[in-house]
Amino acid sequence: MSNNKYGRVTIPTDIDVIPETIEIIKKWGADAIRDCDGTDFPVELQDQNAKIYATYYTTRKDNTWAKANPEEVQQCYIMTGFHTADQTELRINLMKGICLELIAVNTRDDIKRWWEVMDRTTGEPLATDQWEYDEETTSVIIHNPLPYHEYTVAFLGYLIWDPVHMYNAVTNNWENFEHQITFDVRQPKTKAFTMERLRKFIKDNPYVNVIRFTTFFHQFTLMFDELKREKYVDWYGYSASVSPYILEQFEAEVGYKFRPEYIVDQGYYNNQYRIPSKEFKDFQAFQRREVAKLSKEMVDITHELGLEAMMFLGDHWIGMEPFMDEWKTIGMDAVVGSVGNGSTLRLISDIPNVKYTEGRFLPYFFPDTFHEGGNPVKEAKENWVGARRAILRKPIDRIGYGGYLKLALQFPDFIEYIESVCNEFRELYENIKGTTPYCVKRVAVLNSWGKMRAWGSHMVHHALYQKQNYSYAGIIEALSGAPFDVKFISFDDIRNDATILDTIDVIINVGDGDTAQTGGIEWRDPIISSQIRGFVHRGGGFIGVGEPTGHQYQGHYLQLSSVLGVEKETGMTLNYDKYNWEPLKEHFILEDVKGSVDFGEGKKSIYALPDTQILVQRDKEVQMAVNTFGSGRSVYMSGLPYTFENSRILYRAILWAAHGEEELNKWFSTNYNVEVHAFVKNGKYCVVNNTYTPQSTVVFTNNGSFALDMDANEIRWYEI
Amino acid sequence: MSNNKYGRVTIPTDIDVIPETIEIIKKWGADAIRDCDGTDFPVELQDQNAKIYATYYTTRKDNTWAKANPEEVQQCYIMTGFHTADQTELRINLMKGICLELIAVNTRDDIKRWWEVMDRTTGEPLATDQWEYDEETTSVIIHNPLPYHEYTVAFLGYLIWDPVHMYNAVTNNWENFEHQITFDVRQPKTKAFTMERLRKFIKDNPYVNVIRFTTFFHQFTLMFDELKREKYVDWYGYSASVSPYILEQFEAEVGYKFRPEYIVDQGYYNNQYRIPSKEFKDFQAFQRREVAKLSKEMVDITHELGLEAMMFLGDHWIGMEPFMDEWKTIGMDAVVGSVGNGSTLRLISDIPNVKYTEGRFLPYFFPDTFHEGGNPVKEAKENWVGARRAILRKPIDRIGYGGYLKLALQFPDFIEYIESVCNEFRELYENIKGTTPYCVKRVAVLNSWGKMRAWGSHMVHHALYQKQNYSYAGIIEALSGAPFDVKFISFDDIRNDATILDTIDVIINVGDGDTAQTGGIEWRDPIISSQIRGFVHRGGGFIGVGEPTGHQYQGHYLQLSSVLGVEKETGMTLNYDKYNWEPLKEHFILEDVKGSVDFGEGKKSIYALPDTQILVQRDKEVQMAVNTFGSGRSVYMSGLPYTFENSRILYRAILWAAHGEEELNKWFSTNYNVEVHAFVKNGKYCVVNNTYTPQSTVVFTNNGSFALDMDANEIRWYEI
Repeated sequence: MSNNKYGRVTIPTDIDVIPETIEIIKKWGADAIRDCDGTDFPVELQDQNAKIYATYYTTRKDNTWAKANPEEVQQCYIMTGFHTADQTELRINLMKGICLELIAVNTRDDIKRWWEVMDRTTGEPLATDQWEYDEETTSVIIHNPLPYHEYTVAFLGYLIWDPVHMYNAVTNNWENFEHQITFDVRQPKTKAFTMERLRKFIKDNPYVNVIRFTTFFHQFTLMFDELKREKYVDWYGYSASVSPYILEQFEAEVGYKFRPEYIVDQGYYNNQYRIPSKEFKDFQAFQRREVAKLSKEMVDITHELGLEAMMFLGDHWIGMEPFMDEWKTIGMDAVVGSVGNGSTLRLISDIPNVKYTEGRFLPYFFPDTFHEGGNPVKEAKENWVGARRAILRKPIDRIGYGGYLKLALQFPDFIEYIESVCNEFRELYENIKGTTPYCVKRVAVLNSWGKMRAWGSHMVHHALYQKQNYSYAGIIEALSGAPFDVKFISFDDIRNDATILDTIDVIINVGDGDTAQTGGIEWRDPIISSQIRGFVHRGGGFIGVGEPTGHQYQGHYLQLSSVLGVEKETGMTLNYDKYNWEPLKEHFILEDVKGSVDFGEGKKSIYALPDTQILVQRDKEVQMAVNTFGSGRSVYMSGLPYTFENSRILYRAILWAAHGEEELNKWFSTNYNVEVHAFVKNGKYCVVNNTYTPQSTVVFTNNGSFALDMDANEIRWYEI
Repeated sequence: MSNNKYGRVTIPTDIDVIPETIEIIKKWGADAIRDCDGTDFPVELQDQNAKIYATYYTTRKDNTWAKANPEEVQQCYIMTGFHTADQTELRINLMKGICLELIAVNTRDDIKRWWEVMDRTTGEPLATDQWEYDEETTSVIIHNPLPYHEYTVAFLGYLIWDPVHMYNAVTNNWENFEHQITFDVRQPKTKAFTMERLRKFIKDNPYVNVIRFTTFFHQFTLMFDELKREKYVDWYGYSASVSPYILEQFEAEVGYKFRPEYIVDQGYYNNQYRIPSKEFKDFQAFQRREVAKLSKEMVDITHELGLEAMMFLGDHWIGMEPFMDEWKTIGMDAVVGSVGNGSTLRLISDIPNVKYTEGRFLPYFFPDTFHEGGNPVKEAKENWVGARRAILRKPIDRIGYGGYLKLALQFPDFIEYIESVCNEFRELYENIKGTTPYCVKRVAVLNSWGKMRAWGSHMVHHALYQKQNYSYAGIIEALSGAPFDVKFISFDDIRNDATILDTIDVIINVGDGDTAQTGGIEWRDPIISSQIRGFVHRGGGFIGVGEPTGHQYQGHYLQLSSVLGVEKETGMTLNYDKYNWEPLKEHFILEDVKGSVDFGEGKKSIYALPDTQILVQRDKEVQMAVNTFGSGRSVYMSGLPYTFENSRILYRAILWAAHGEEELNKWFSTNYNVEVHAFVKNGKYCVVNNTYTPQSTVVFTNNGSFALDMDANEIRWYEI
């Protein structure tokens, strides 16, 4: 298998490792080489039969331009903290808690038009004659505030230091360097300048084949405090994608007046837990269209000059939204992104309308891992095996690494291990390419964001752990490598065309009540609640995790309580006697569970309705239950962090909810540490051991079964 | 001390224990004798120099009348369960889940006027021509319901079996008896009949001195299902206080149309967790006025015939509301009620405008305790010692027992112990009567109900444990015996006259978010939030327990987050970095804590704001914190079940919040199992050991301290 040894791999290089790069190209079968932030590309490597990627910074690395055009420096909306009025005058220092090296208050534009002072006690904005700004103390002064009301100010700040540049500098203790100032490509002068700058960059680097845009125009929301500590971060945040120039266009398009509140959103900045307002959805749609238009211009230039355009899914990617319709108009050739787990893998590999996708694997070749006593092989194994499940469902087309190759070379066992990963990736890619793997059921994750936040619905910062979140994100992670046809749908999707439900076997609603993850107030819409109720009643499956459909309204906290068969005790029903507490002794869903189920954070105060079957109850709180509703079935779970056992629980829950118990023993491993993926069109299937220890199992194919012993991490391929 | 041996004690009797009753009268120093449900009063006891109480059942025990006047049988509103429309016709059986022996559907009154069919999916009532009633199947039929919408029916049912009579019959397995049917004294014929019936009863029982009304007109909400199991219960519920006759009067008074929804309240029946609607508050006010008027007529008759009127605070007490203004117009002589703990003691002893109050202590002389192997002394000790703390703050005037004296006589140690209780009660009553005990601070519990639910704010059924509640009810229990001037205030009180805050040192807000206990949506009212913020800022104290001021609005979940210094992570602020996690090593509030604090159920996901001082943090969740706000102070606790240690924590928290640390060592015991109460006007103070084991402590008076060893349960009196 020649293509087992060559291709689909990108490596980093630097001028100090030229012969070693050539060695690694051969050893790993790399067919692409890249520079990195802080490295230089050696000309000697131009003729290695490998594509060359060049990182291109669209919005920074030209302080001359930035300083000459201060009015086109990028801007963001910031809301101050809450300030209580305890005197006849209230002074609010806008820069309190904000890094002065990062932000400069924008007083160039009309502050009375673009800022907003809110009385948070009444929820009303102040008339503009009720406040003024004192430039010297960077403070808004409110005259005669209402006693003991709380006030906030939303204002525009210039990003006078690129937040990612700042993050890199602070994290790595850089010294003696100039802060890179941002510039805003959406504005007219900078736009014209940028198009020429891109042409020049390409002409100046004639050996480059691929422009790796890092990224386009708008940084995700990222703020630092006076101590240069991260203050808030939202990888999906739009608060740094604003300027009066584009907001005027927005107003013209939507036909209503813009308010800063649409962006600062009470200080929550429209993060993913927030049920998006109409205005914010309008704003995102406007941004998607405008950003797509402008990025297309850059992609077109790249193509015109004979290169490929690749987007790094990170940093300044806001507005690009690869799962939305505008994306396909751009003509992007490729997307590359960091792979932390299965969910982040699918975040890349599911992107449509590109020629190829590439996953940047961990660990980075940085000193935090590659140091005396470090264990990069362990990190690499965990990263690879975790992502492999997802690759087997929907492969990325390439894998790659980043950082300083020099560091990796000092770990020969790491070099060996990555060689095996590259070979394994190429083999599996060859075996599964062009097929859709066997899917036992069609599953839809229903939330307020739908496909725009596919696979990322439970992220705050990219793939970071959150105590309040991991018990829900585990569902998404389990799905990323499971044999289901998974889609992410929104409440708007159902309102627009409820026949979307006809293409789904099981709906999953996972998260806390009154969040975008479960929908909150969306459930007051009779269309939503009755359509989903009808879907289940006619035979569909519904899986609720945490506080699914949670929103207090008309006698329910869980709005689909009668479907789920459980309800949350908020105190409102403490007056009702509850007699149903006895769990079933056994159930299809729990047949592979060895000890007690790990629900993660779980939930308190859930109780079962009288006819519900309880699967797990602890201390008079139901953690898992099943219910029949009309011809359909529902499953409730209080949480489900990602583990192999929990992944199996979810698998069985989906089958049970879809009346598919008899489909269990097909392309199936009795040992849940081992999974089976079938690629019927290609006549192949594989069995993978997801653990770092040997495993024994019985494998079920489509017509029989056999016992199998597997090595740690092993993947084994078979012909059907 | 002669009065140490006689008086202030009521005992039960029966015809089979006449000489023994005389014996007990002497032994316990009883000065009142009562009959009980199922006992008869022996004429031989008429001359024992003891008052005689007779239980009088205002609303039952006359089936002849009830059967002759079926239209005046008592009624209640019932809401059916939620029913999903899955066909072109939806049938809802009103009696599903309801005991047929308890309720009969009222079709006598106009069902189209008095019933309400709700589309719970839209929240709108159906027009009356969209449904009809099928008497044979007791079902409402909805024609052409909207597909998969949920519907409920609120209807009027007759209480054809008195719920308390039913409860007694079912619990005690009575056989061969007639169900006692209720009759409604609020209706014209029954009202006239009742007044004559009372006169006749008094004339027929000339030896009686006190009519013990059990109670007046309306049973608290109490429903049973087909299996005769309790279905729902709310000791404060008004759902059985209705009839078209009085609802028409209500409509005339308030000037708007009555809706069943005002009573059934989405199925929650306006229980104490519900933030009361304007309409329900109007209804309660109407009931209070009407019930007071009518009960006054009965009290007047009682007085006219030379007897005293005593109200039993239980069963049919709805509408009487002893803490509200209407109460004082009635002229009631006495109130008697069951004492389960300190809170229920204060529920009785704090009642104003009566000549005396009486506590009915546990255990009842019933076979459940008084049987071979039973330990009635243990129960009696726990009951007495638990209540004694509260008696020392605000005494009841009498104590008493109930049940079958015959049973108690078989336990000589019990007879001995109760003798000591009677003597101890008389001694302490003598020592403290007429005084206000020393109060170190003025404390107000703030919730939606205010004084109407004083001491009962966290009860569902009378003094019953609830998992969702005990961590909050512990605060009320601790207060019931603590040296504070405690009042219960409502949000309406503040709106009506905010100067009420000038009479308070520390406000306590305790419970879950979006409940009447903490106020929920009340905090959107700028008057409420700014007045409380101002109160603290000017130097007041604020103690929040659980999810105080919890309601999502304008950037906060805890509306007084900036006062409390903590916030709940609902996911909305996961994008914010949180650096403040380190608890203080020591703090005034925790100085007497021996191990780790017991927060009961505690709370998840509470985090501290940057300047807040954390006292206890567990697994990155703050359980206790203090904060300074202007000149004031606040304390947050996630829960505080009642224990002696927690009572001390609350004591110190109140002192700290009120800047009163230096007032600690006054009328104070260093050992928290022992408490000191001072009655300065009477020149007395006492030291009480609240435990069942000996204790050593140091007692601080107003001018010094001394060490003291105490026996189990001991109370020791001193002169100041």
